[in-house]
Amino acid sequence: MRASLDFWYEFASTYSYLAAMRIEALAREKGVGVAWRPFLLGPIFKAQGWETSPFNLFPAKGRNMWRDLERSCAELKLPFRRPDPFPQNSLLAARVALAALDQPWGEDFCRALFCAQFAEGRRIDDAAAVGDVLARLKIEPQPVLAAAQSDAIKARLRAQTEEAQRLGVFGAPIFTTADGELFWGNDRLEPALRWAKTAAECR
Amino acid sequence: MRASLDFWYEFASTYSYLAAMRIEALAREKGVGVAWRPFLLGPIFKAQGWETSPFNLFPAKGRNMWRDLERSCAELKLPFRRPDPFPQNSLLAARVALAALDQPWGEDFCRALFCAQFAEGRRIDDAAAVGDVLARLKIEPQPVLAAAQSDAIKARLRAQTEEAQRLGVFGAPIFTTADGELFWGNDRLEPALRWAKTAAECR
Repeated sequence: MRASLDFWYEFASTYSYLAAMRIEALAREKGVGVAWRPFLLGPIFKAQGWETSPFNLFPAKGRNMWRDLERSCAELKLPFRRPDPFPQNSLLAARVALAALDQPWGEDFCRALFCAQFAEGRRIDDAAAVGDVLARLKIEPQPVLAAAQSDAIKARLRAQTEEAQRLGVFGAPIFTTADGELFWGNDRLEPALRWAKTAAECR
Repeated sequence: MRASLDFWYEFASTYSYLAAMRIEALAREKGVGVAWRPFLLGPIFKAQGWETSPFNLFPAKGRNMWRDLERSCAELKLPFRRPDPFPQNSLLAARVALAALDQPWGEDFCRALFCAQFAEGRRIDDAAAVGDVLARLKIEPQPVLAAAQSDAIKARLRAQTEEAQRLGVFGAPIFTTADGELFWGNDRLEPALRWAKTAAECR
């Protein structure tokens, strides 16, 4: 049985950026297949009474996150620039990602969107911004943006977010395994990959 | 200038247990001096409106923390047993630790207290429990417990907790450096040590 991991991410999430930039190479090295699963944190935060990111609700935690992100990006040699406002509304981005992930360039799109937002500090919250990211990948924006606003994709994003919630996903990034483990945070990527690998070998 | 790190920990904090068990060997290897600084998270949580641990307030986060702790302890080959209730009242433990840290066996006491609580699942919230930990280290409990309840130690713990808050400490464990960096969480111990080392070398 092939080792595999589900990668749950939210486009507005800072640490999802780090995980998105790291996961492909690490998973390949370990021989673990990765399913990219964008979802929305907003409804999940709302269910526990939060109207915005906990990094805004709890200022000391927020200050630390931005500084930690700067330091982590420097260690990983990833560029970093803070988007304004934070968090960005990621609804359209997530819908486009779901449509894109049906295509061979889907994961490239997701990485490019994270980079536009967190490496360049650009907004990702409207059709022009998301269209720019598509155009840079030489993808014609209009058909993808139209597909992303279809009822089918809207329903898939709702279902995916509900599935995340059902699995106990409460933040991002989160990695889940077929045998029911859940790993939270960019710094749990390596243990999650080790777990997925070992679990597959033991079956 | 010698590299150094302040290690801020709360006895009721699960990830402080992991950091307390790891920090001595890792810091020695790097040549970084560590100041052990017990404090109380309770007043800091209260200041942001929390009456108990966020792991109790946010159940999905709490469930993940316990499972993550089991997995992390297994990877680190540390025993783990969940104390009941959680969090334990750590006021007396922190006062005793402050008194103990004036003695050569202070750090041993702190590790032994963490182990009693998280390796054996014992309570640490009264004089008998804390006295047991002292007795196991062949320290006569009564004089230490009496010193811990002195006005001087009570004032020092209040001052230390206020200093933590002033530095932006919002959780535990947290590592702070002389040049103003703050690293949150057991999994930031290694980057904190690297930072302290590099900062000292560059001065």
